[in-house]
Amino acid sequence: MLRRDRLFLAATLTAVFSADLYFILLPKLRSLGRPHSCSCGPGNLSLPRQGGLATPLLSNWTSVPLPDSATPEPADGGSKLEKLFAHTLYNIQTPSLGPEERLLQAEQLIEYYRRKVSRWESVTEHEVTYDPDASWMKFHLGINRYALYSRDDPAVLQLLKDMQNMAVVSADYTQDEKALKGACDCTQVVKPSGHHLKLALKMKNFAKAMFKPMRQQRDEETPEDSFYFVDFQRHNAEIAAFHLDRILDFQRVPPVAGRLVNVTGEVLQVTHNEDLRAVFFTSPANNTCFFAKCLYVCKTEYAVCGRPDLLEGSLSAYLPGLSIAPRISIPNPWTRSYTFTGREEWEVNPFYCDTVKQLYPYNSGNRLLNIIDMSIFDFLTGNMDRHHYEIFTKFGDEGFLLHLDNARGFGKHSQDETSILAPLSQCCMIKRSTLLRLQLLARSEFRLSDVMRESLEGDPLRPVLTEPHLLALDRRLQKVLRVVQRCVRRLGEEEVITKDFIKTYNPPSHQSV
Amino acid sequence: MLRRDRLFLAATLTAVFSADLYFILLPKLRSLGRPHSCSCGPGNLSLPRQGGLATPLLSNWTSVPLPDSATPEPADGGSKLEKLFAHTLYNIQTPSLGPEERLLQAEQLIEYYRRKVSRWESVTEHEVTYDPDASWMKFHLGINRYALYSRDDPAVLQLLKDMQNMAVVSADYTQDEKALKGACDCTQVVKPSGHHLKLALKMKNFAKAMFKPMRQQRDEETPEDSFYFVDFQRHNAEIAAFHLDRILDFQRVPPVAGRLVNVTGEVLQVTHNEDLRAVFFTSPANNTCFFAKCLYVCKTEYAVCGRPDLLEGSLSAYLPGLSIAPRISIPNPWTRSYTFTGREEWEVNPFYCDTVKQLYPYNSGNRLLNIIDMSIFDFLTGNMDRHHYEIFTKFGDEGFLLHLDNARGFGKHSQDETSILAPLSQCCMIKRSTLLRLQLLARSEFRLSDVMRESLEGDPLRPVLTEPHLLALDRRLQKVLRVVQRCVRRLGEEEVITKDFIKTYNPPSHQSV
Repeated sequence: MLRRDRLFLAATLTAVFSADLYFILLPKLRSLGRPHSCSCGPGNLSLPRQGGLATPLLSNWTSVPLPDSATPEPADGGSKLEKLFAHTLYNIQTPSLGPEERLLQAEQLIEYYRRKVSRWESVTEHEVTYDPDASWMKFHLGINRYALYSRDDPAVLQLLKDMQNMAVVSADYTQDEKALKGACDCTQVVKPSGHHLKLALKMKNFAKAMFKPMRQQRDEETPEDSFYFVDFQRHNAEIAAFHLDRILDFQRVPPVAGRLVNVTGEVLQVTHNEDLRAVFFTSPANNTCFFAKCLYVCKTEYAVCGRPDLLEGSLSAYLPGLSIAPRISIPNPWTRSYTFTGREEWEVNPFYCDTVKQLYPYNSGNRLLNIIDMSIFDFLTGNMDRHHYEIFTKFGDEGFLLHLDNARGFGKHSQDETSILAPLSQCCMIKRSTLLRLQLLARSEFRLSDVMRESLEGDPLRPVLTEPHLLALDRRLQKVLRVVQRCVRRLGEEEVITKDFIKTYNPPSHQSV
Repeated sequence: MLRRDRLFLAATLTAVFSADLYFILLPKLRSLGRPHSCSCGPGNLSLPRQGGLATPLLSNWTSVPLPDSATPEPADGGSKLEKLFAHTLYNIQTPSLGPEERLLQAEQLIEYYRRKVSRWESVTEHEVTYDPDASWMKFHLGINRYALYSRDDPAVLQLLKDMQNMAVVSADYTQDEKALKGACDCTQVVKPSGHHLKLALKMKNFAKAMFKPMRQQRDEETPEDSFYFVDFQRHNAEIAAFHLDRILDFQRVPPVAGRLVNVTGEVLQVTHNEDLRAVFFTSPANNTCFFAKCLYVCKTEYAVCGRPDLLEGSLSAYLPGLSIAPRISIPNPWTRSYTFTGREEWEVNPFYCDTVKQLYPYNSGNRLLNIIDMSIFDFLTGNMDRHHYEIFTKFGDEGFLLHLDNARGFGKHSQDETSILAPLSQCCMIKRSTLLRLQLLARSEFRLSDVMRESLEGDPLRPVLTEPHLLALDRRLQKVLRVVQRCVRRLGEEEVITKDFIKTYNPPSHQSV
C-alpha cells in the first residue's frame, strides 16, 4: 500500500509541477518587468476585515501574480467542458486500487444487497430486478479513499440516467424524517420542522435516491431577513452542487439528477407508509400536494404541489448503508451559531485558525486542507449551512470529506457571503492542486460559468441555475483567488500553497493512515 | 320605542321608494320597447351550476332589467365619494335613539373605563390620559341597534386619525393569541398556528386597537394551491374592508386605519409581556423582527420584520369589552369545511336554503337577509373564511351582524369565488336597500372602484389596494347584480327584493325585539 501511495504521489506531483510551470512560473517571468504596487504600507498594523471577518495581518508580504482571467483566449467554439476534462490537471491517473483503498469489496456488497432484496421481495407486489451490474452497485463499488467516483466512470453517467428515468417502486420518509416524527423538538427556535420534505425513493433496479421536491422558483431569491437555518432547501442547488463538485474535480458529492416526479404514481401509490399517505391532499386548484407532518405541527402551509401530479425534484444517489460503510459526522470547526444572537469563536477571533491547527485531527495530514476545499466549494454555492461534515471511517483521518446536503446553496446570486471563506482566509493555506484548478476555471477558455452552464444542460430540469447564479460563480471564484493572492503576499508561496498529501504541522502522532 | 321604530320604518320606506322609482321603474319604462332574450328555454330542467354550486331552477321567470352600468355618465370631475354620500339613499335619517337602542349608556361606560384606567395607571410608567371625550369613547357610545356608527359621525374620522398617529403606550398579545399559547391544538390539520401575529396596542388616550402586521406585498396573489384557511391575513384587506363596508352603507366593520408601526419603540419597548419580548430578534439584514410563538412550534419562518424598525400594519378599533357589551358568536350556516376533503351540505344540496329558512333564528325577521348582505360583502372582497359571525346580545335576533375579521379578503384579484354568494343565489332574496345601493355603485358616476380608490386615498398606507383588486370589485358587483337578476326572472321581484325590516316567513314566535 505504501508503494502505491508513493506512485500516486509521484504522479500527482508531476502533474502539479507541469501546471505550476505553466500557471505560476511563466506568468512570473512575464511580469518581471512590471513593478508591483502594494496598497498597504509597512506602517499599517491594523487588522484588515474581509466581509466582517477578522484576519491576521502579517508582515512578510510576497507577491505572486495569478493568471489574468481577463485575458481573452481564442475560442474555437468546441465544448469547454470537454476541453476542461481533457486538461492535464484533470488527467492525473490514480494508481490501481488495492482492496484496502476501496470502500467495499464486491462479494461483500453483493451478498449484503442480495439479502436486502430478498427481504424486500416478500413485502412488495412490484417486480424488483436485482442486478449486480446495476449502475448504483457500480457506483458503490467504485468509492475509494480518494473520491466517491473516478473522473471517467461510465457508471456515474448511467446512474444519473437511471435516476432520471427508471420506474419508482417504493417511496418512504427518509431516516431523518422518521427521527423527527414524534420527537420534533421545537422548543428551540433553531430548526424549522416543516422544511424537511425529503423522501427516499426506490427504483425498479433497487437503486435508492433521496428526493427533494421543488420549494422555490428559479428566479426567487432568499429574503434578506431569512436566517440560513430556516432557508428553503432548493432542489436545483442540490443538482448544481453535484455538477460544480465534479467540475472542481473533487468528486465528493454523490450523483444528483433532476426529475419530474409524478407524486401520485411515484410516491402516493407506491408507498407502504400510512403516515406518508396521510399527508397527501388535493389542493383547491386540483393539484396533488403533500406536506411534512410532525407530531405537533400541521404544515399545510408548507405543502408542495404537483401540476397536477408532476413535481420537479432532485434525486441524490444514496451512499452505501451505514452498516456496511460506516461514516462519522464531525462538527465543522467553522460552524455557525444556530441562534439569533450567538457568535462563534471564529467570527470574533482573528487567530482562530492557530487554535484549530493545534487540535487533533487538524494538527496533521490533510484534514484542514480538506476543510478549506469544502469552504471554497460552499463559498462558490453560497451555502452557509455546513454545520457538520462526514467521512467514511474506513479511510481514517486522511479520508476525503463528503460534501453532502448542498440544498441551501444558490439562495442569493447578488450576495457573496465571504464569511464562508473563513477557513481559507484565516488559515491562509490551500492545496496546490485545488488552486491550479481554480486558476484554470478563471481563464476564459474554461470559464467556470461556461462549463457549469454546459454541464447543467445535461440535466432534465435545465435550466438548473439562472444566469445571475452562473455569473456569480465567476465573481466568487475571483474573490477566492484574491484571498489566496493576499495570503501569498503576506506569508509567501511556500507557506500558503501546500503540496497535497505532504504538509504536516506537528509530528504526525495521530495520523492513522 | 315602537313609535320610533315606525317612524324610522316610514323614513326608510320613503327613501327606498324614491330610489326604487328612479332605478327600477324608470329603466323598466325605458326598456318597454326592447324585447328581452332568455338564454334558458322552458325545456331546460337541469340544475344550472354557478361556480360549482347547485342552485334550484324554477319556472316562473320574470325579467327585471337593472340599470346599465356601461352607460357613460357626464363626469364633472368632483369627488364621486362625496356625491355618493350626498345621495338620497345615503341620507335616510335614523330616528333619534332611545336608551334601549344604544349599546351603552354614557355613565356606565365612563365609570367602567375609569376603573380600568386607574388599574392601568398603577402598572405603567407611561402617562395615560383618560378623556371621556376621546374619539374611541364616542365610537363606543355611538354603537346602536342599527349600526356600529352613524354615517356622518365625526368621532369615527377622529378615531381613524388617532389610530394613525397617537403614541402607543402598551402592546400585548390579543386574547386569541393567549388562548393559543400552550394549547395550540395542531393535532388537526385545519388551523395553522403561525399566522396569528396580531397584537393589541394601547394608545396614550387609552384607545385600544388590534394590530395586524403586513405579511404580503400588495402585488402578491394567494397561491392557487392554498386553502382559504391557511391563507395569510392581509393588513390591507382589513383596511379596505372597512372602507368597502362604509361605502355599502353597512357600518358593520369597526374603524380600521393603516399605520407604519415602529416595532421596536411601539411594541418591544412598551410591552410588559415577557413572552412577547422573547419572540423579537434581529434579522441577518439587521431588521427588527418578531414571530408567533406557540408551545410546540418554532416559527422563525413566519417572522415579520421592520425596515429596520418600521412595519406596515392595520389598526382595528376594539369594540367595547365583552363584560359591558356581550356578543355572541354564531356559526355561519354557509360555513365551509375546514378540512381537505369535507363538503358542507350547502355545497351539495341546491335546496339548502329551504332548510335554513325553517330554522330559528333564520325563520323570521331579518337574520337571513343580514347573512345575505354579509355574503355579498364577502364575495366582493373574496373572503372565504366566514365561519362565524357575531352579534351584540343586547339587540337580540334582529341586531345587525358584525363584519369582523376581514383580513383574508383581497387575496386573488383574478378569481371571483362565486360560491361565497351561495346565500344569495340559493335563497334568492336581498334587502331592497342593499340592492339599490349596489345598483348605484354599478353606475359610472358612482363606480365602486372609483369611490373605493378615493376612500382608500385617505389612508396613510395608500395605495391600499392594487388596481386589479379595485377593478375586480366592479366585475364582482356585476356578478352580484346578475345573480339577483336571475332570481327576479325566476321568482319575480316581489319574492326576491325584500322590504327591509318587514318580511317574515313564519309567525314571529321567536322574535325577541
